[in-house]
Amino acid sequence: MRTLIPLDLTTPKTRLSTLLSPPERETFATVLLEDVLSAVAETDLDPVVVATEPVSVDVPVRLDDRPLDAVVNDAISAETPLAIVMADLGLAEPDQLRSLLGTDGDVVIAPGRGGGTNALVVRDDAFRVDYHGVSFQDHLRIARKRDLSVSVVDSFRLASDVDTPEDLIEVLLHSRGTAPAWLRAAGIRLETSEERPTVVRE
Amino acid sequence: MRTLIPLDLTTPKTRLSTLLSPPERETFATVLLEDVLSAVAETDLDPVVVATEPVSVDVPVRLDDRPLDAVVNDAISAETPLAIVMADLGLAEPDQLRSLLGTDGDVVIAPGRGGGTNALVVRDDAFRVDYHGVSFQDHLRIARKRDLSVSVVDSFRLASDVDTPEDLIEVLLHSRGTAPAWLRAAGIRLETSEERPTVVRE
Repeated sequence: MRTLIPLDLTTPKTRLSTLLSPPERETFATVLLEDVLSAVAETDLDPVVVATEPVSVDVPVRLDDRPLDAVVNDAISAETPLAIVMADLGLAEPDQLRSLLGTDGDVVIAPGRGGGTNALVVRDDAFRVDYHGVSFQDHLRIARKRDLSVSVVDSFRLASDVDTPEDLIEVLLHSRGTAPAWLRAAGIRLETSEERPTVVRE
Repeated sequence: MRTLIPLDLTTPKTRLSTLLSPPERETFATVLLEDVLSAVAETDLDPVVVATEPVSVDVPVRLDDRPLDAVVNDAISAETPLAIVMADLGLAEPDQLRSLLGTDGDVVIAPGRGGGTNALVVRDDAFRVDYHGVSFQDHLRIARKRDLSVSVVDSFRLASDVDTPEDLIEVLLHSRGTAPAWLRAAGIRLETSEERPTVVRE
């Protein structure tokens, strides 16, 4: 299945600015992307990265600096079924992607923490995305309005997009990709002496 | 399978103190417990709530005010297989609990966000719990040291224990239990006008 992986490199990962410099944040965004692509490579998904700037990866890249909704909605009009997988799902593994693909429904949603939509399968071209605000809720509404069936996939790995220092805890603990080693090389590690774990940079 | 549901009512849900008063936090803790028990009731799990104070629910309650580790480790010594499910898994549903039960391994872990251990199945009495700090990591280590096999269950619902205002977003969006209505009756709702959703109390 054709799979869009949108990557916005305009000012990526700003919520990590207490830990990483702007160039580091850009690099880290591509490290997460590489981990997503490694997981995708072990599935039947046929990926194309849609990026705001050139990026060097082993899959086709299409440059497009329009807002995310316009990019994805045009792609839905052009071709369904279509999957849309966020580029910062650092914990995604082939199993979760396969179960996304294997779930029935005109629309299949893997919610992200905080009301987001981290991965989607769209099998009916009447669907439209709206990634602003509480997109999970909006996507349910849009599907209902257009009489489309919706399935929701329950996955901690797919729910974990990587935006904040707290999200790095999940990467360090659960990712089997390259991101944990990259973070550790940058001096970032779990701090476990407090009541609740945090991340620190040395 | 015998299933411990530990409930600490000493000072429950302190991280919700910006939104809820102490008596409200205690009530909310029991609302979450009731939702967990409703999910458990649809499975083969045989629940016993182990509480620091009396609580009125439709399943057996055992009073025990010792630290969590002591309570759970004694229970493991007394009886395996044993499941341990946290009382604040407000998004847990029968499907996730069944898949926990149906997963092979001497130890089956459903990790919580932030390095926690939200649900466990222990099938070998050589295992011991240590819920302090990054318990997910500690539980992997303890199992490895004692040559026990470990499986990890990937579930957003089981990963979502309810401790912080941000966690209430997940409850309001994804719970099919009674907690969302309780929160709404208390005037708590999703605020979606900002870039990222938050919860507010009116």
